[in-house]
Amino acid sequence: MQTIEFKNRPKIIGNYAIAGPKEGKGPFGQYFDYVMQNDSFGEKTYELAERKMFEQAVTGALQSAGLKSADINLMLAGDLLNQIISSSFTARAFNMPYLGLFGACSTMAESLATGATLIDGGYFNNVVCVTGSHFSTAERQFRFPLELGNQRVPTSQWTVTAAGASVLSMEGEGPQVCMATYGRVIDYGVVDVNNMGAAMAPSAADTIITHLADTGRKPSYYDLIVTGDLGKLGAEILIDLLEEKGIRLGLNYSDCGHCYYTREQDTMCGASGCGVSASILNSYIIRKMKKGEYKKVLLVATGALMSTTASQQGESIPGVSHAVVLEMGGK
Amino acid sequence: MQTIEFKNRPKIIGNYAIAGPKEGKGPFGQYFDYVMQNDSFGEKTYELAERKMFEQAVTGALQSAGLKSADINLMLAGDLLNQIISSSFTARAFNMPYLGLFGACSTMAESLATGATLIDGGYFNNVVCVTGSHFSTAERQFRFPLELGNQRVPTSQWTVTAAGASVLSMEGEGPQVCMATYGRVIDYGVVDVNNMGAAMAPSAADTIITHLADTGRKPSYYDLIVTGDLGKLGAEILIDLLEEKGIRLGLNYSDCGHCYYTREQDTMCGASGCGVSASILNSYIIRKMKKGEYKKVLLVATGALMSTTASQQGESIPGVSHAVVLEMGGK
Repeated sequence: MQTIEFKNRPKIIGNYAIAGPKEGKGPFGQYFDYVMQNDSFGEKTYELAERKMFEQAVTGALQSAGLKSADINLMLAGDLLNQIISSSFTARAFNMPYLGLFGACSTMAESLATGATLIDGGYFNNVVCVTGSHFSTAERQFRFPLELGNQRVPTSQWTVTAAGASVLSMEGEGPQVCMATYGRVIDYGVVDVNNMGAAMAPSAADTIITHLADTGRKPSYYDLIVTGDLGKLGAEILIDLLEEKGIRLGLNYSDCGHCYYTREQDTMCGASGCGVSASILNSYIIRKMKKGEYKKVLLVATGALMSTTASQQGESIPGVSHAVVLEMGGK
Repeated sequence: MQTIEFKNRPKIIGNYAIAGPKEGKGPFGQYFDYVMQNDSFGEKTYELAERKMFEQAVTGALQSAGLKSADINLMLAGDLLNQIISSSFTARAFNMPYLGLFGACSTMAESLATGATLIDGGYFNNVVCVTGSHFSTAERQFRFPLELGNQRVPTSQWTVTAAGASVLSMEGEGPQVCMATYGRVIDYGVVDVNNMGAAMAPSAADTIITHLADTGRKPSYYDLIVTGDLGKLGAEILIDLLEEKGIRLGLNYSDCGHCYYTREQDTMCGASGCGVSASILNSYIIRKMKKGEYKKVLLVATGALMSTTASQQGESIPGVSHAVVLEMGGK
């Protein structure tokens, strides 16, 4: 069994989402707790801006939970930058015990799954999970210098400038983390760094198929099955791959990356980055769950394990997708 | 409390250590399961060689545990390379569910702590923890091209070419993982990428002080308190920092990095890298525990959260150290 169950159902008692100006103009802009006026966020470098987003997300999630920094037993965090510096320096700023993670854009689910294990097992009282991404730091690290002004190809996605944080605890109210499915690393041989959707979709399919088999559930069990950042093309590939296995996703399926920007914002296949599922979960989805509009959600955060070193040595880009089951009320 | 206790005491039922030729000539050479004949290990790139070490370590640990790949519920892994490619591609090769971690050279303890949580809480039956490092991949990523032949400064440490893997389970025999202390990110402002010991020592001190306070234990409780890769200078700084707090480490304290090479091997302050504690734990220490020579061990793996991007932007190098308590028999 790849799927684990949290019998005590840790709750998301605090949440916060922050996003950049372009993201603020998208369909979810009204739901974010804070929209930055510009991408540099008053900092000298984009890396410092990304870190400041992480810090604000943690501060906001703590306030939302009514907790102080000293109440938190562990910070679980990861990001896209080499050596996950946004996460590590944020942990330094808050002086919290720190569990660094790397799952590329699957980090929001990876951190919730691991954090829920620590709460559910009674090891800790409160943990905070945080991740995010910044367009300008990711593009220049993984692709080309921004100054080049490269033309974007039709399969490309726009790395979001956004971060989200969740506080998990046994005490308090909020969506319950009921189950998690840690994904396997799946590789269909995609080598194009401008086609993240195709690199990640097979791993999303694998995790969803495994999750449904492990739990004996049908997709219709969930009010919402939402993938992280497959984008327009990746989501289409996922639907195809699942149909081949006899699994039909219905109106309850959506992808955060696909609907993160308006068409007018011209991002080709939509959004990508750790910040996609982090910011939508910690704003729109949790808000809708608290209102009772969603009761059962399967969040499948999708990561492309891309590395310039590996790509330059001719490697393909594998994907990994982790899933968490969130439910409101019940049990 | 930063320290968590594993009431069911998951056991290390399989272990394996592999090292490079230089490492094989050091004091621990005779204890490693396998010593490579050369650093390229039959591969075209050093990154591929590093990955092959990881794969061999996992295969060896599984054999040592008498398990097959399909028996493993989760691989917990991390390494020093950007986007932890050695870990991700190893997870791909074994087709195992994968939890990617980043704690720099603290990863062996970070993975054991997190893996033990998953076993102890009854979520999984068997997990494998693996990490390692390669001199040639790390040096060129973090410092200078090898071809430059830079002169090494007195505070420098030699990144080991080595990997180690442990299989954790409730069934079987082996050293028990009894407790873990996740460390905080501590920064004393060290900016020298050739002085990892000074960057990591404050975090090791913080974790040890916290662990002893949380448990009410004195250093003498342990037969062995062993830090990961502080090296000669870092270990001295640790002793100083602890003495300032009234904690005196005795003959039971040692550092893996300090004693990894002979003096003749001329590595200045000793060894560093994820492979240091991974390979010594999974060879010498576990063997001595099984022989009854060590009963109670505190492993404090030490990580320098170094990043070229952060360093180039003027940041200092923080450290993080995670501790695990291993005991043989008892309870």
